[in-house]
Amino acid sequence: MIYLDNAATTKPDAAALSRAAQLYGETYFNPSARYGGGFAAHKLMEDARQSLLCTIADPALFDLIFTSCGTEADNTAVSMAKRGNAVTTAGEHAAVYESFLQLRARGVEPRFCPLSEDGSVSPEALLALVDEKTTLVSVVHANNETGAVNDIAALARAVKKKNPRCIFHSDGVQAFCKLPFRLPAEVDLYSVSAHKVGGLKGTGALFRRKTCSLQPILFGGGQENGLRSGTENVLGILDFAFAAENFSRLAEETERIACLREKMWAILSEDFVRISPMDGSPYILTVACRAARGEVLQRMLFDRGVAVGTGSACSSKKPVSRVLEAIGRYDRTTLEGVLRVSFSAETSEEETVQAAELMREAAREYRKKV
Amino acid sequence: MIYLDNAATTKPDAAALSRAAQLYGETYFNPSARYGGGFAAHKLMEDARQSLLCTIADPALFDLIFTSCGTEADNTAVSMAKRGNAVTTAGEHAAVYESFLQLRARGVEPRFCPLSEDGSVSPEALLALVDEKTTLVSVVHANNETGAVNDIAALARAVKKKNPRCIFHSDGVQAFCKLPFRLPAEVDLYSVSAHKVGGLKGTGALFRRKTCSLQPILFGGGQENGLRSGTENVLGILDFAFAAENFSRLAEETERIACLREKMWAILSEDFVRISPMDGSPYILTVACRAARGEVLQRMLFDRGVAVGTGSACSSKKPVSRVLEAIGRYDRTTLEGVLRVSFSAETSEEETVQAAELMREAAREYRKKV
Repeated sequence: MIYLDNAATTKPDAAALSRAAQLYGETYFNPSARYGGGFAAHKLMEDARQSLLCTIADPALFDLIFTSCGTEADNTAVSMAKRGNAVTTAGEHAAVYESFLQLRARGVEPRFCPLSEDGSVSPEALLALVDEKTTLVSVVHANNETGAVNDIAALARAVKKKNPRCIFHSDGVQAFCKLPFRLPAEVDLYSVSAHKVGGLKGTGALFRRKTCSLQPILFGGGQENGLRSGTENVLGILDFAFAAENFSRLAEETERIACLREKMWAILSEDFVRISPMDGSPYILTVACRAARGEVLQRMLFDRGVAVGTGSACSSKKPVSRVLEAIGRYDRTTLEGVLRVSFSAETSEEETVQAAELMREAAREYRKKV
Repeated sequence: MIYLDNAATTKPDAAALSRAAQLYGETYFNPSARYGGGFAAHKLMEDARQSLLCTIADPALFDLIFTSCGTEADNTAVSMAKRGNAVTTAGEHAAVYESFLQLRARGVEPRFCPLSEDGSVSPEALLALVDEKTTLVSVVHANNETGAVNDIAALARAVKKKNPRCIFHSDGVQAFCKLPFRLPAEVDLYSVSAHKVGGLKGTGALFRRKTCSLQPILFGGGQENGLRSGTENVLGILDFAFAAENFSRLAEETERIACLREKMWAILSEDFVRISPMDGSPYILTVACRAARGEVLQRMLFDRGVAVGTGSACSSKKPVSRVLEAIGRYDRTTLEGVLRVSFSAETSEEETVQAAELMREAAREYRKKV
């Protein structure tokens, strides 16, 4: 199996999991327990927190709250829009987009910034929506469907210049450990997910600038300094830290991944339309086959040993992508023929070429049939 | 290490974990992915759901929604109180209790039923708070601090008789797979947690009567039929089903566990006050040493190889237990001397006797010192 659906989920990092499982097996205590075993479990978790923090942030300025997934981190961030209006983009993952749709019921006006042709947002378009009543701005870092990258640091700086009191959040699920990035002081909240970097499904985190006020959406025993109640997913948390450590190291090969992406595109370019921008995340190549429906090709390819996506796995039941539609330059036939190839640090050149050839072959075969 | 803090968290079931990890390693795909691998992951998850459902429910009447923990399941249930008043008890876990405290801000009046002397609630006291404006009633099944058991079936029936439209929820985290129980049709929602029955921290579930309407508290990709967005914790879910299966089988020894509890009490009775009722959960024996603070004894015991709790691990930072205080029959000295011993199906008679003797010894030693 050539696995090229890493934006949906990565293959679990076996070394990280076995290391985490061993520690967890020995230190299975409840981290809230007030005796040696509990303290040890708590310490393991704090070490994992520090390790993850240091990956992209200055631990003097930021901390992080563990959550059960990127979606929960996004929901927690968006819930901080408590009055006035909140601004986001048409290119957000459903976790942010759907949370914004809920804001109206809470008396907050959601505003959606249109996308540029490459799937990113322009600072001008975003700033046009921000005013003195804006309480939160949320912009995805790397788009999960196209790989389009927003310059979060510049956007956050511009937003804060216009309205210093609003909270700036970014969904960094597809960018964390994949794009060279350090959290600038202008970003208040930043969501990440373990299972996009070799960790387990079921763990995420919300980075928080220490001076940014945050309120919980889950209430109970007061774990995570009262910001996320519920017994901590210790195995998932340890595994996340180990996996991210390994992934970051491998991700120094960003250049190599970008080469793979272009090597693949060279093989596909005759039969597919390219949707991913050249300067997008190297980990994502989204293309459209105008001759065949994406999901049909996807299944043909899976039968031949290649797993690719058709867009966001999370919204896979919808007929065409909301995000790609919002870009506004693709007709229905293109939107229905989308395939998303997403690489990981483990992807080899041989696999890439073989997958590309199978994709081309499937597209041509399909065209002959109809 | 003699581990007797199983109400805080159980030691992970190694066989269940290795079985789940193997399946997950092979089928790591995103269960939302629309190709063979995704379908296979989805199927594994659905099998786990059916297996868990059948443990206590008729799958024709109930389904279940996977959550990230018992706390999230409780929060989801309580969030269904959207107007009027909502009734719960003074004996709830923080996940329900703190969620109820949040209701006021949403325009719902929270009502707390006082506890009987044994820590349970009487049907009369509960019904006195239920009226035609009650939209939700939530009663813990087995109390996590005392083991006091409420007759959920009878309470739900009585509540529904008085107000058939209100939702009846029970927090079953300490009862699931531990008390003989089948979900009656009068219970609408029932919360459980994996790590109390040998599963991993980070997975819970909310059983739901199929005709009971439920709304999500997390928004996004629409997983779990739109009721809980976020990529599913597949490893945790598979492990939960396997662990619960093993635990249920062992739990047929409820009688044996009850004997262990009484054997321990026979050794402790001279030096401790008994807080757990005789007819409570066999898995919990809560006692108080009037001569020493619980946490001091707890650490002495941990140093001698016995792990016990002092009450709810989740609220372990509070000086005395809110729940035990609410019972109203214990003075401050007693409340400060609480130790909670909680058994698992793996606990042996030898361990029980040895732990009891060490507890007695520690209490006497401490008394001599002061």
